[in-house]
Amino acid sequence: MFPKNAWYVACMPDEVADKPLGRQICGEPMVFYRNAEGAVVALEDFCPHRGAPLSLGFVREGTLVCGYHGLEMGCQGKATGMPGQRVNGFPSIRSYPVIERYGFVWVWPGDAAQADAAKLHHLEWAESAEWAYGGGLYHIGCDYRLMIDNLMDLTHETYVHANSIGQKEIDEAAPKTVAEGDAVRTSRFMENVAAPPFWQMALRGNGLADDVPVDRWQVCHFTPPSHVLIEVGVAHAGHGGYHAPADKKASSIVVDFITPETETSIWYFWGMARNFRPDDAALTASIREGQGKIFSEDLQMLERQQQNLLRWPERNLLKLNIDAGGVMSRRVIDRLVAQERGQTGVPQAEATRVIPVRTAT
Amino acid sequence: MFPKNAWYVACMPDEVADKPLGRQICGEPMVFYRNAEGAVVALEDFCPHRGAPLSLGFVREGTLVCGYHGLEMGCQGKATGMPGQRVNGFPSIRSYPVIERYGFVWVWPGDAAQADAAKLHHLEWAESAEWAYGGGLYHIGCDYRLMIDNLMDLTHETYVHANSIGQKEIDEAAPKTVAEGDAVRTSRFMENVAAPPFWQMALRGNGLADDVPVDRWQVCHFTPPSHVLIEVGVAHAGHGGYHAPADKKASSIVVDFITPETETSIWYFWGMARNFRPDDAALTASIREGQGKIFSEDLQMLERQQQNLLRWPERNLLKLNIDAGGVMSRRVIDRLVAQERGQTGVPQAEATRVIPVRTAT
Amino acid sequence: MFPKNAWYVACMPDEVADKPLGRQICGEPMVFYRNAEGAVVALEDFCPHRGAPLSLGFVREGTLVCGYHGLEMGCQGKATGMPGQRVNGFPSIRSYPVIERYGFVWVWPGDAAQADAAKLHHLEWAESAEWAYGGGLYHIGCDYRLMIDNLMDLTHETYVHANSIGQKEIDEAAPKTVAEGDAVRTSRFMENVAAPPFWQMALRGNGLADDVPVDRWQVCHFTPPSHVLIEVGVAHAGHGGYHAPADKKASSIVVDFITPETETSIWYFWGMARNFRPDDAALTASIREGQGKIFSEDLQMLERQQQNLLRWPERNLLKLNIDAGGVMSRRVIDRLVAQERGQTGVPQAEATRVIPVRTAT
Repeated sequence: MFPKNAWYVACMPDEVADKPLGRQICGEPMVFYRNAEGAVVALEDFCPHRGAPLSLGFVREGTLVCGYHGLEMGCQGKATGMPGQRVNGFPSIRSYPVIERYGFVWVWPGDAAQADAAKLHHLEWAESAEWAYGGGLYHIGCDYRLMIDNLMDLTHETYVHANSIGQKEIDEAAPKTVAEGDAVRTSRFMENVAAPPFWQMALRGNGLADDVPVDRWQVCHFTPPSHVLIEVGVAHAGHGGYHAPADKKASSIVVDFITPETETSIWYFWGMARNFRPDDAALTASIREGQGKIFSEDLQMLERQQQNLLRWPERNLLKLNIDAGGVMSRRVIDRLVAQERGQTGVPQAEATRVIPVRTAT
Repeated sequence: MFPKNAWYVACMPDEVADKPLGRQICGEPMVFYRNAEGAVVALEDFCPHRGAPLSLGFVREGTLVCGYHGLEMGCQGKATGMPGQRVNGFPSIRSYPVIERYGFVWVWPGDAAQADAAKLHHLEWAESAEWAYGGGLYHIGCDYRLMIDNLMDLTHETYVHANSIGQKEIDEAAPKTVAEGDAVRTSRFMENVAAPPFWQMALRGNGLADDVPVDRWQVCHFTPPSHVLIEVGVAHAGHGGYHAPADKKASSIVVDFITPETETSIWYFWGMARNFRPDDAALTASIREGQGKIFSEDLQMLERQQQNLLRWPERNLLKLNIDAGGVMSRRVIDRLVAQERGQTGVPQAEATRVIPVRTAT
Repeated sequence: MFPKNAWYVACMPDEVADKPLGRQICGEPMVFYRNAEGAVVALEDFCPHRGAPLSLGFVREGTLVCGYHGLEMGCQGKATGMPGQRVNGFPSIRSYPVIERYGFVWVWPGDAAQADAAKLHHLEWAESAEWAYGGGLYHIGCDYRLMIDNLMDLTHETYVHANSIGQKEIDEAAPKTVAEGDAVRTSRFMENVAAPPFWQMALRGNGLADDVPVDRWQVCHFTPPSHVLIEVGVAHAGHGGYHAPADKKASSIVVDFITPETETSIWYFWGMARNFRPDDAALTASIREGQGKIFSEDLQMLERQQQNLLRWPERNLLKLNIDAGGVMSRRVIDRLVAQERGQTGVPQAEATRVIPVRTAT
């Protein structure tokens, strides 16, 4: 269950270079390639001739050619040629709106008529020369909402990432969650704590002492359909924390674009944007490597959690204060899915899966 | 969906030597072994005692012995002995008619009463000293009819086998397809073209210049249930092509015996028979190696095509002129299956899968 | 289909040391760990917070802590703490009765109210200093009852274990099977035979000549739910066989604790207890290695037999005299399962799988 009328990250630009890329997005097998102008095109990965995947074909001067019998497919999903054939009567395949922006290729798996580039939120860090970005891609066997839960409740850092970004003060600082329209924000502030290893590294990378008390913050922003951007940072204690001047802090934005592949698997585009030493490529690589290791620690937990939920579909999970970010994000998702289905409420079949509010805290 | 009252290639003779061979044919798990006379026997791979696969047993002086508790199984599927037991009352298992001929072991998975060696078509190349044969076996995850389609439409050579036997003139020469009774023949002739690499090799192997224009031909013969023999060759241009004298051409027969394992997997026995330098074992090995590489290029395409068709079962595929060979072959298969089911038409459940005729060309 | 109100071997004590152990028993995913007193605890492997497997967590001073968000789980399945949360209202998870005894950890997957340590049968060899034990664990993809059949009919030794413990005289000596309450005993005695390789080794290990005729015995004891202990041995011929004095024989007990994982997979705890040279650790290791090799020979047969039975669910298997041990054991199991279901007979759904009595012998 996912909104289909939305922009999802499909791939990174360098994944679509000379050869077509086959990738399933929101249950739709798609092929991505670049046309003669270099623009990325997304089509159903199905040749109307004999059903071969077009992603096994090749690109000839910007035209996608089926690798089985040479059908040439146009950017709109209409065959444009085939050796010895008149293709006018061939059935079309779907084409999907695509935008290449902010260092990602975005696809709209739903109703193309509703696709609008203006609906893609602005990402300041992706366009400014004052910021640097590094990231990667993981394939994980879980419902995309489990990953949203994960990212909107960072108390898991203390357990899953105990040796890098976790610290007991995360548990001790209650988060605050607010919803504004379709956006959800969960904030946590910790004052006068020791910086954990990852942040010591970041402080050093920013030319700051790493052995003094710091104020630390985590502000998680969910926006539909499944994007979580997290402002994170530490400042030398007593200088204003989140609002401290640039020469007293190390901060960055954890970038999480979660694209459903199927109901129980995702393409997880993770990364970090920082606004200090943006030209230091070695630092970018170092942070990327560290983050990649940390984020890989979540994979087994998410996949095994998914398996447990599939085995016990009738069990209700708890909704504690720390879970409020995920819970509110799911409500936004439920509402959007219901809207797509032309209904005013969540459809019955899905409603049985909705987690009841508990008052355990 | 496959005809069961037909001779299928089960294995190559050397696959049934000292030990029993377990192999599923047309959905039937079978065990093959040689009896005391050296004749191949095929039985259900199921011991009537406790259900163990007989193929895990052994052959003692021509008798198949279950490897679990020693039941001795006779050639007709009737237990002949077991230590300490009277076996008269034991239930029988099915035995399947078998013929070993033409360098293959053939099995009849259907009604044994209808099995007749005369129904096995004659293979001249397999018995004549003027011919040599080399081949191999691939296991592929696709409906056997997708492989028939593949072999009856060789325009795929230009794309799948671009570096060996493909050339653009294949696309340019329209094929001609005719049906005669249960046989289907698709022919294509190309005049005054350059020989592609595989055929240059064959010309040299036959002591002929490889850098002169040639006439090239492909004549695909389908016969039920799923056998495709393809006469292929090149002749120095202007000497009669297909009918050119032996010292002006290199020709051979591509041999394709496609045996369904399940509805979506096959045992694909491929090979090549040639009538030049039949005693040159090194040439046989060389051709076999080349053909093995070329034919392996089809595997991924066929398996991914199968997956696409399973995902979109409601989609109709196109039936272009180049597809006529496969389309007509499928009609023969449909008719034979319908006959087996004692019906005059294709049964309803299957009819929904039949590809509608399109007039796109 | 398995009795759940019974003690099953869950694991060996050293499998639950510092870290929790996740293992599915009788279809129930469980987590095992040691509490502050060192006692093994078994709980559902499901954190009531968000469904994560508790077995991915850790043990802190005898308390199981969820590795996702730090929920602390008590021995009775009731959360005892969680950072920043009041856990009183959290739903409980199941806890399972556990006993650690005889060198194994036993679990009761059914109704805890009926669990009683007195229902665990006494194992003299596991407590006496005159006995030594060595064993191992295999995971096998078959119904646990196929393994019971296997162990209650040792004629398979002649075929599956031809080079170690099999010999033709096993087939020749008819077994005798008797049921006493819920226990089933199948006995076989062979007089004046040659000792097969494994027993020659055991005779030498016991300081006895290995090249003289022996009397050999096998007495298989089934007790519910799925335990098979087999008294096996050889004595120099003419000294009383099973009843021969200790200095004339080599004997031991084959230990088989078969724990269903699912309907078609098992945890197979195998081993051998012997009452000669109990302090000879090298001999224990040598026997263990030999037995491990021999018992691994059954795996493929059992898994392929299982696959055959799944493919032909409607086929009835034979029930010969040699199968009486397995047949009677299954009757005990059927009766216990029926009791659990509060019925007087075997439920209908299972009845169709019951093997009819044959009179083939």
